Amino acid sequence: MLDCTDGSARCGRFLTSHGSVETPIFMPVGTLATVKAMTPEVLKSLGTQIILSNTYHLHMRPGEDLIAALGGLHKFMGWDGPILTDSGGYQVFSLAKLVKINDEGVQFTSHIDGSRHLLTPEEAVRIQEDLGADIMMCLDECVAYPSTREYVEVSVRRTIQWAARCLAAKKTGAALFGIVQGGMYPDLREVCSQELSPLPFDGFSIGGLSVGEDHEIMMNMVEETVAHLPADKPRYLMGVGTPVDIVESVFRGVDMFDCVLPTRNARNGMLFTRHGKMSLKQATYRLDSSPPDESCTCYTCRNFSRAYLRHLFVSGEILSSILNTIHNLHFYLELMSDIRHSIREHRFRDLKKKVKEMYDD
Amino acid sequence: MLDCTDGSARCGRFLTSHGSVETPIFMPVGTLATVKAMTPEVLKSLGTQIILSNTYHLHMRPGEDLIAALGGLHKFMGWDGPILTDSGGYQVFSLAKLVKINDEGVQFTSHIDGSRHLLTPEEAVRIQEDLGADIMMCLDECVAYPSTREYVEVSVRRTIQWAARCLAAKKTGAALFGIVQGGMYPDLREVCSQELSPLPFDGFSIGGLSVGEDHEIMMNMVEETVAHLPADKPRYLMGVGTPVDIVESVFRGVDMFDCVLPTRNARNGMLFTRHGKMSLKQATYRLDSSPPDESCTCYTCRNFSRAYLRHLFVSGEILSSILNTIHNLHFYLELMSDIRHSIREHRFRDLKKKVKEMYDD
Repeated sequence: MLDCTDGSARCGRFLTSHGSVETPIFMPVGTLATVKAMTPEVLKSLGTQIILSNTYHLHMRPGEDLIAALGGLHKFMGWDGPILTDSGGYQVFSLAKLVKINDEGVQFTSHIDGSRHLLTPEEAVRIQEDLGADIMMCLDECVAYPSTREYVEVSVRRTIQWAARCLAAKKTGAALFGIVQGGMYPDLREVCSQELSPLPFDGFSIGGLSVGEDHEIMMNMVEETVAHLPADKPRYLMGVGTPVDIVESVFRGVDMFDCVLPTRNARNGMLFTRHGKMSLKQATYRLDSSPPDESCTCYTCRNFSRAYLRHLFVSGEILSSILNTIHNLHFYLELMSDIRHSIREHRFRDLKKKVKEMYDD
Repeated sequence: MLDCTDGSARCGRFLTSHGSVETPIFMPVGTLATVKAMTPEVLKSLGTQIILSNTYHLHMRPGEDLIAALGGLHKFMGWDGPILTDSGGYQVFSLAKLVKINDEGVQFTSHIDGSRHLLTPEEAVRIQEDLGADIMMCLDECVAYPSTREYVEVSVRRTIQWAARCLAAKKTGAALFGIVQGGMYPDLREVCSQELSPLPFDGFSIGGLSVGEDHEIMMNMVEETVAHLPADKPRYLMGVGTPVDIVESVFRGVDMFDCVLPTRNARNGMLFTRHGKMSLKQATYRLDSSPPDESCTCYTCRNFSRAYLRHLFVSGEILSSILNTIHNLHFYLELMSDIRHSIREHRFRDLKKKVKEMYDD
């Protein structure tokens, strides 16, 4: 549901059975039924509206059967807000040892125990339904970058067929998003968008980007895809991205994002601030009594110095991951809140400019 | 200050410039200026009154000069409650490569970078004062177990001399505790207690126990030491211990404890419950939807199942350390609160019996 627009940027709401989500939104990644280093209580206090969990990882460990037997993913992990799950496809292509892909599905061996599995569109939907996801993703094929036009053509065709099979396989009231692929070929992105658009999906994802291509190419692909998607349904750019990626994508009409950057960088001692990125590894912070970001209101910045955070990081303390993750998620979630406000007040372009000045690298 | 007694068990209060502490008390261990996996906010919510930090570790990394330049340990780590520091002696004897010990002090090489250091009684006090500790410990010699009577005699003599030098070296208003040594020789414990008792210490520590001796020997040594200490000053049994060690020591008149057991065991998937210890490694908890302890009111038990905690532990998730540490510290701190209440109500013996039934191993 769209509330207002500012150019192509949009503000809206998406309703799930675990509450509504305000878009544009960033979803912290909770791969193994936990956003790393965060309790659900802390996530809530940070203003997290929705999290993402990874179907492939949960299917492998502890298994959707176990999670279903324990009352579903929400109850299992103690998170009562909305949860979006991916289809597992991306991880099959990136993590697992791929055996074979054909029109039926993907055969692969587990990255954990080497066991053999078959992931089909029907199976991807069943697993996500067993997990109890609020928003599910269709199984799609993520092609490598670069890929030949010939291969991407075949692959897009398969992704479209799989999308229809996912819709047919759906048994519950959970939302299901179609995924637009097409590699870096604008006309294939267009074909894929146009073929998926009429189908009764609850939203559309843009897949296969942020896989090594230039920022400019990515933005072109986003534009080509969004142009052919219905205006009244949410658009989700999967696995993206940096603050600049996000504002540039919102500028082009994208509503939803997820990315490991804020959480993973936190664990690697890298903080997002209003002055750009900050690496706690730097010796210059050894005696620095100021917080990571003077203007930040997060728990970490209100209570701790760069010197202390550097000490925790250098010492490999768990508290380092906790405090850095709090800060980075606060930064991302506040950025999204700022984006929503600026769209409502028709000053999104100014905000985008400010973000690009902060992160001009 | 003593409030009441129940047999030899005592309830009291100890005043520091960062607030007063109710005894008997358990002090979570914050080795490197952080209680592992805990924010100060969570520690407070658990009812933590005072924490311990390790002088040796902080001296090595990041250094007391850095901490002093940043306003002292409280400000550095964002903990505004009392902090007790040890003298560094125990870690020198257990972690560092010892070079030489004589009446002047201990020469050793760092376990981190192999650099050479000299720790004297004066230096131990200076470092703790630079850190800004509320309660400081005298430098003492921790003898190995077993040690010959001849060696322990010489060593106790040295510890007594060092105690007087620590008192003389003190420049600030921080509290300073003398440490009773004497190995497993009751008469040497007596000598040490009697020689230290008249000195103007703010409290007395019992050192050199829980080093591999039987529980019964340890309790004998506690008794022999406590018998010769002044009644009006707090007694601190260093590095102890299990729930049974604690109730048995309180029974003999001990007021203060610290131990890595609740925090370290938490990170190893071992929980303390009212039904005894529980290892989350056990496959029997795979599908167990009950909390670790039905009667426990901690955040972990109110929100998560054994199955989820097992999943987090098996997956090596940071949240595992966080949730397990919350539970174990809650258990220890609630045990101490129960101990204080039972002493006030003259039913400490019943509580001790109950704890021994829980942990009869």
